[in-house]
Amino acid sequence: MPLSEKRLISRIRRRVVTDRRVIAGIGDDCAVLRLSPGHEALLTTDFSIEGVHFRRDWQPAEVIGWRCLTRGLSDIAAMGGTPIAAFLSLALPARTPQSWVDKFFDGLLALATKMKVTLAGGDTGESPSRVLADIVVLGSVPAGRAVRRSTAKVGDVIYVTGRLGGAAATLEMLLRGKKATPKNFPAYFRPLPRVAVGMRLRERAWPTAMIDISDGLSTDLGHICEESGVGAEIHADAIPLAEIARTGKTVRREHALHGGDDYELLFTASPKTRLPRAVAGVPVTRIGEITRSKRVLMVDSDGRRRQLKPGGWQHFSR
Amino acid sequence: MPLSEKRLISRIRRRVVTDRRVIAGIGDDCAVLRLSPGHEALLTTDFSIEGVHFRRDWQPAEVIGWRCLTRGLSDIAAMGGTPIAAFLSLALPARTPQSWVDKFFDGLLALATKMKVTLAGGDTGESPSRVLADIVVLGSVPAGRAVRRSTAKVGDVIYVTGRLGGAAATLEMLLRGKKATPKNFPAYFRPLPRVAVGMRLRERAWPTAMIDISDGLSTDLGHICEESGVGAEIHADAIPLAEIARTGKTVRREHALHGGDDYELLFTASPKTRLPRAVAGVPVTRIGEITRSKRVLMVDSDGRRRQLKPGGWQHFSR
Repeated sequence: MPLSEKRLISRIRRRVVTDRRVIAGIGDDCAVLRLSPGHEALLTTDFSIEGVHFRRDWQPAEVIGWRCLTRGLSDIAAMGGTPIAAFLSLALPARTPQSWVDKFFDGLLALATKMKVTLAGGDTGESPSRVLADIVVLGSVPAGRAVRRSTAKVGDVIYVTGRLGGAAATLEMLLRGKKATPKNFPAYFRPLPRVAVGMRLRERAWPTAMIDISDGLSTDLGHICEESGVGAEIHADAIPLAEIARTGKTVRREHALHGGDDYELLFTASPKTRLPRAVAGVPVTRIGEITRSKRVLMVDSDGRRRQLKPGGWQHFSR
Repeated sequence: MPLSEKRLISRIRRRVVTDRRVIAGIGDDCAVLRLSPGHEALLTTDFSIEGVHFRRDWQPAEVIGWRCLTRGLSDIAAMGGTPIAAFLSLALPARTPQSWVDKFFDGLLALATKMKVTLAGGDTGESPSRVLADIVVLGSVPAGRAVRRSTAKVGDVIYVTGRLGGAAATLEMLLRGKKATPKNFPAYFRPLPRVAVGMRLRERAWPTAMIDISDGLSTDLGHICEESGVGAEIHADAIPLAEIARTGKTVRREHALHGGDDYELLFTASPKTRLPRAVAGVPVTRIGEITRSKRVLMVDSDGRRRQLKPGGWQHFSR
């Protein structure tokens, strides 16, 4: 049996680095975790499904493991939280090579170590045909200070971190059969969730609302507007476009507007707030304003307004 | 589209009952949850995979949803914890009828309400062929008081709650093509996780170690022994056998020894502890003792000892 559950768990257990917040990790009915006094728990779960979120022939196993954890950490970042522990439920087809599984964990544990997160549990199971991973991340935030999606106010300014569209542009290359390697496209293959940025923003109490851009700017801005009961106007020219590594070219604006998997943060702040140009080393760009209209509009360079419909991240399946 | 993710989430959101410990539930990047001061967090994840843990032609959708949550709550019970919130990641084949999904949530939410647990988040996705659910439960326990698997001591007495083998006996009927309905086999179709029993035991500080019997007595006793570095002897005649509903018959001992899915608790206590016959209304039965030998033995009625190998719960697939 290449994939005995017991062997798999004991292999993982040997490799996990833990810290004092994790009182019990893998090997009991539950993990036991300590939160700082006066803190609330944050919890997020995210599926990564083969053929929808990744393809084993396009992405190395390490990259799939890394990106699987990125999804969860990015959600913690979007609330301004500190991640503590991750839990992975992994369903594998019976014939998955042990070497693929080992490399998947190489990637996942590399990011976990970088982000000081303990892999503290999970489950394993047999999947009929495709790899299916469900990542859970537990974090914490000082009580009452989690940054919500639903609290943007009319007149607030809209910001994004980093540059957008790199993941979608890389994906398009892969779809066209062009080669894209982790070395050439680090931001796509090994995205760094904006945990430090989210924490710094929350500490300063700058954001009135925040979300991570996992489904694309148009979709995720739509979520903020819907949950807050407001509208938005964004300026087409203001959107920071990702550069394609080593080419000096930037991505097309459509990629930045509708492409997912960038894992940057989108947030709103009072117009009175003076934001620095960079937070925790990551550039922050003003792209628009929150409006009363409940519609999301994009203003072109010639001043024309058109509705920005959620284009959304369609993954591989559509 | 019968299974639009947005429609599914808004349907669930309308049905969820929440409480003051859940500050933010479905609809943000993370759920935000409040733990009582001086408490630690408990977290558990459990897969329920079609064809492995359930079959849609054998179990009604409500029962599959109910049992899916039972798995998680039972792990919280096994640590002596109080469950707070559940999170469900659900991957569905494209053609799953909305009515099946609604009934799945009927069952899951019925147990959640009974156990005062809020469904506070999760994820949805498309599965190529089988229904796959990953349940996460967050609970809490006073700091330092979680009951572990690894703390059984030589000389401790071994106890189980309730009666064992009912789930395995019912499953065997189903495997033979006999009819088994939720009405006739309530303990199999709608198992009640022993949350109140686990909490009461932990409050009294009676157990030295505890686990839930989800994989079968032989396997789960093996886990306690392995993690605690001890052995055990159990008395064959002492094992409380489940009664098959409305027949007056009990299950075969093999079902009670190796059958899974009973969701009773297995715990150890000092020989000095005087345990009542029932805890939180559930009978508690002494079945053996912890030994130094590191082997798990069963003593027959004629005094002969034989090794009890983990039979384990083989689900439907073997």
